[in-house]
Amino acid sequence: MRYAVLGTGAVGRALAGKLASLGHEVAVGTRDPEATLARVGADAHGNPPVGEWLADHPQVRLLAFADAAESAEVVVNATAGVDSLRALEAAGRDRLAGKILIDVSNPLDFSRGMPPHLDPVDTDSLGERIQRTFPEAKVVKTLNTMNAQIMVDPSRVPGAHDVFVSGDDDGAKKTVAQLLMSFGWPEESVIDLGDITSARGAEMVLPIWLRLMGSLGHLDFNFHIQSARPRA
Amino acid sequence: MRYAVLGTGAVGRALAGKLASLGHEVAVGTRDPEATLARVGADAHGNPPVGEWLADHPQVRLLAFADAAESAEVVVNATAGVDSLRALEAAGRDRLAGKILIDVSNPLDFSRGMPPHLDPVDTDSLGERIQRTFPEAKVVKTLNTMNAQIMVDPSRVPGAHDVFVSGDDDGAKKTVAQLLMSFGWPEESVIDLGDITSARGAEMVLPIWLRLMGSLGHLDFNFHIQSARPRA
Repeated sequence: MRYAVLGTGAVGRALAGKLASLGHEVAVGTRDPEATLARVGADAHGNPPVGEWLADHPQVRLLAFADAAESAEVVVNATAGVDSLRALEAAGRDRLAGKILIDVSNPLDFSRGMPPHLDPVDTDSLGERIQRTFPEAKVVKTLNTMNAQIMVDPSRVPGAHDVFVSGDDDGAKKTVAQLLMSFGWPEESVIDLGDITSARGAEMVLPIWLRLMGSLGHLDFNFHIQSARPRA
Repeated sequence: MRYAVLGTGAVGRALAGKLASLGHEVAVGTRDPEATLARVGADAHGNPPVGEWLADHPQVRLLAFADAAESAEVVVNATAGVDSLRALEAAGRDRLAGKILIDVSNPLDFSRGMPPHLDPVDTDSLGERIQRTFPEAKVVKTLNTMNAQIMVDPSRVPGAHDVFVSGDDDGAKKTVAQLLMSFGWPEESVIDLGDITSARGAEMVLPIWLRLMGSLGHLDFNFHIQSARPRA
């Protein structure tokens, strides 16, 4: 399959690297590839320069958002939540139409300091906003409830733990579930929360995730739904 | 210990019944005991009349909020979140001062239909509001992330699963952790999220909890934090 992964941060790199390692054709999308490549030194989150990462992943191309989306069959939004709608507008409505759009972002607003606030929250979600803004895309919210390394390597965390999917298109959710299984997620760990409005719940676990990171002192943890009955 | 459990719904009954079964002295608080006892037939949530429940629990007294709080060493807020501040005001500031106040409620507002909204949310929590309103009480938020039956009988759900505690007073959190262990919670399942502001995260899991209830088709499930490293 041909994937476009929008965003060059830790999440975009983890997903693009995994997809490429599975033999998919992967383009990473950024606003301005030349500017992205010109960066030297670690970014604000401690990630090494994108140029270094690309040198280690020669099969992955870095393209402008629109060029990455153009040739893709599936688009992954791994941009920061506050930038996602702008990045997707730059990718272009027509280039998203009819495609599966996997949204792994969180609408975290750090502008008022720590802890970050969620915007939107409770009565809306970023997943829904993306679906409303691009009604011809098939938006599936998933993977936003864990660290990037766990997304593509669930075995980092021992025992059973889960990944949620939300979306209006059952076929798109089925395709995304297959992709998650190819990442190493057991079928029974992929929990369908419902339509895209259920992205509210998935995004609203971020505040407890951030507190758990503080309590546990690391990022290698994930949620597991322990149930008294097997799932139907 | 002498407990006051404020609230006569399913949560209050589960907690009061468990506390009484463990040999504690328990008063259940309500706005107007005579009116509460006069109710016949199931309530809006399908619970049988309180009078029936009391007949099965002769060691539990039903008292007005203030009378229940008066003699208690520990007060449990098991009222509906939208009513909690009023109920606690009725219990009385002086009768809460210096006591552990266990808050198990959720600020769910059903007035605009389903799904309920959280109010407050994200930038504040009901746990914090209660602590601000009653600064001399030692508020510990806990147990609000699961069904009432699981709160007092964690073995209903097989395998490891967790209960969160949030609060500013470490001694109060330790006492509450002991109480949770007496309910059957293993020590390693009691996760301290931090100060009372971490109640935001615990309250904000309600939307995904409600979606999971829909996806799983039952209430007998709970969150487990699966971690790659043992907790410190």
